[in-house]
Amino acid sequence: MTDPLTTLSGTLDTVWTLLARGATDRDAPARHPVLATSGRDGAEARMVVLREARRDPPRVEIFADRRSAKVSELSAEPRASLLVWDPALRLQVRLRARFQVLAGEAVAPLWQALPGAARALYGGRPAPGAPIPEPGDHIADPAAHAFCVLRGVLAEIETLHLATLGHRRALFRATDDWQGGWCAP
Amino acid sequence: MTDPLTTLSGTLDTVWTLLARGATDRDAPARHPVLATSGRDGAEARMVVLREARRDPPRVEIFADRRSAKVSELSAEPRASLLVWDPALRLQVRLRARFQVLAGEAVAPLWQALPGAARALYGGRPAPGAPIPEPGDHIADPAAHAFCVLRGVLAEIETLHLATLGHRRALFRATDDWQGGWCAP
Repeated sequence: MTDPLTTLSGTLDTVWTLLARGATDRDAPARHPVLATSGRDGAEARMVVLREARRDPPRVEIFADRRSAKVSELSAEPRASLLVWDPALRLQVRLRARFQVLAGEAVAPLWQALPGAARALYGGRPAPGAPIPEPGDHIADPAAHAFCVLRGVLAEIETLHLATLGHRRALFRATDDWQGGWCAP
Repeated sequence: MTDPLTTLSGTLDTVWTLLARGATDRDAPARHPVLATSGRDGAEARMVVLREARRDPPRVEIFADRRSAKVSELSAEPRASLLVWDPALRLQVRLRARFQVLAGEAVAPLWQALPGAARALYGGRPAPGAPIPEPGDHIADPAAHAFCVLRGVLAEIETLHLATLGHRRALFRATDDWQGGWCAP
């Protein structure tokens, strides 16, 4: 069988398979992408949990506390990146997306579906990032109004495959109907 | 023995041990941090190789092709982040740094010390990111003038320890002489 990463369509299919696994399998490489946003003092990066990956239309979703820095950063500059590394495939995937912050009624069904332990991640006191005297000085206080969904509508997917016989880089764009093209690695 | 991640000084020591290993050990978790920069269309993220980590003064170094997007992005906005995840410790480390691009004579000794295979990563034709018809249409052409070092002088280190009995977040700042403080996770 031909290695799917040697063709553009095979590469894009591989990306979506990888993302779909990340959204459903806690142990998949795409489960914890790095989200890069524009902060006040330069770019910021942190790991997030991939909650949804849908190919048509191409979008991804993550959950967040509305008071967290990433939410205010995405409100100020919605264009951001997600990075996934699959060590078995030796494939780096960079997603460029424009993020919407969904909250309130729009995400009530997702909040209702969250197990109690997961809800405790949203709404604690004080707010995320606030200084506290000791690590224990933080109280879980699950609150629907603190919960939001960051929905990223994909604009570009860039892949870099670290192959033994030469690295392969490809770029796929929404404006190009995801046809894609090769680039110098 | 007390878990070092329960104290601020122990947390900072752990970060530097982790970074030092990343700079010397190809299999260490800190070997391949994610570098987040400010791109023209929002934040960008990609994996890099950590080449140096020095605690005093606190700085990190990575190598790059001078024609790569990260170099032009750091020239336009030197403030950027590096993210490391240590799965065994369940520790996320975010480094905020101001990057200088060092090239030419300043980095000639590092270029001389690079093995031939490593040199082939800098100076290929066409330049990184340029469209090519097929993945093989790229020629290695090691060139000292294409090699540069991205030196990040650290401004902040933020840690997040995903502990079973409650997550711990800490923030250390150069302006605070790296004394550090706890923050809400």
